[in-house]
Amino acid sequence: MKTMDDLFYALMQDVYYAEKQLLKTLKKMGKKATSEELQTAFNDHMEETQGQIERLDQAFEMFGKKARGKKCDAILGIIAEGDEVIEEAEEDHILDAGLIGAAQAAEHYEIARYGTLIAWAKQLGKPQIARLLKQTLEEEKKADALLSRIAEAQVNPAAKSA
Amino acid sequence: MKTMDDLFYALMQDVYYAEKQLLKTLKKMGKKATSEELQTAFNDHMEETQGQIERLDQAFEMFGKKARGKKCDAILGIIAEGDEVIEEAEEDHILDAGLIGAAQAAEHYEIARYGTLIAWAKQLGKPQIARLLKQTLEEEKKADALLSRIAEAQVNPAAKSA
Repeated sequence: MKTMDDLFYALMQDVYYAEKQLLKTLKKMGKKATSEELQTAFNDHMEETQGQIERLDQAFEMFGKKARGKKCDAILGIIAEGDEVIEEAEEDHILDAGLIGAAQAAEHYEIARYGTLIAWAKQLGKPQIARLLKQTLEEEKKADALLSRIAEAQVNPAAKSA
Repeated sequence: MKTMDDLFYALMQDVYYAEKQLLKTLKKMGKKATSEELQTAFNDHMEETQGQIERLDQAFEMFGKKARGKKCDAILGIIAEGDEVIEEAEEDHILDAGLIGAAQAAEHYEIARYGTLIAWAKQLGKPQIARLLKQTLEEEKKADALLSRIAEAQVNPAAKSA
């Protein structure tokens, strides 16, 4: 890894791999979630993630490099922590709380990575790639905010029944 | 894992482990960074991280449970990706860009996790723990924003010399 181009390309591959892993994970989460609102949030974001992968395909093309993924241990760790919650939670509201937490860790991983990719695309004189990925970054931030609102809405009922 | 208490305690241990790993990593990053501004940012945040660990010690105590860490694969994956950059970068500005990217991935992991811990502390009727951890969350957000500003400042000189 010698140039900013190499650094950018390596991170693109990391994020490409992460998005593809998340696509599978969101599908599973949508099935496991018990609240209808959360199911919808996961299913909607799964569709959005499909579009984000297509944007990455476009970005690879604009960058003139082959679209490919590279194993990303960070996202695998985040997903593994989520799986642990799914396996161990025995009550619906605990499962949902755990799923939201895991999904927000994944969203924030992506927010960080897209933020970095956008900064580097600008640095490399590729503003059109930066603009494309900015659309995804905004989607990730909205998905995270929606999960926060769903989590907040859980607080009051749970506190009352506790 | 059966109750929200268990879920909260497990995530506290995850974050405790993550902060202790980051303390070591920030020390290394502060030594490796070439820009003085970035060195200062890492060193300052290392001191802040020490305070955040102390806050977690307090939070464990307020929660009535032993302070302990539990291996967190997500943060280890993020740190490993940062180490790769450190080993492979051959130019100062590439090294610094890679370090900023790695540090922001770590910050966002923490932002997500503290956000979840705060929501769960409220849900568990522990507003004093929520308030304590909110201080850390604000510090993490500021640290992330500072890194973004440093990264942005790198864009123009690099674009000119490219």
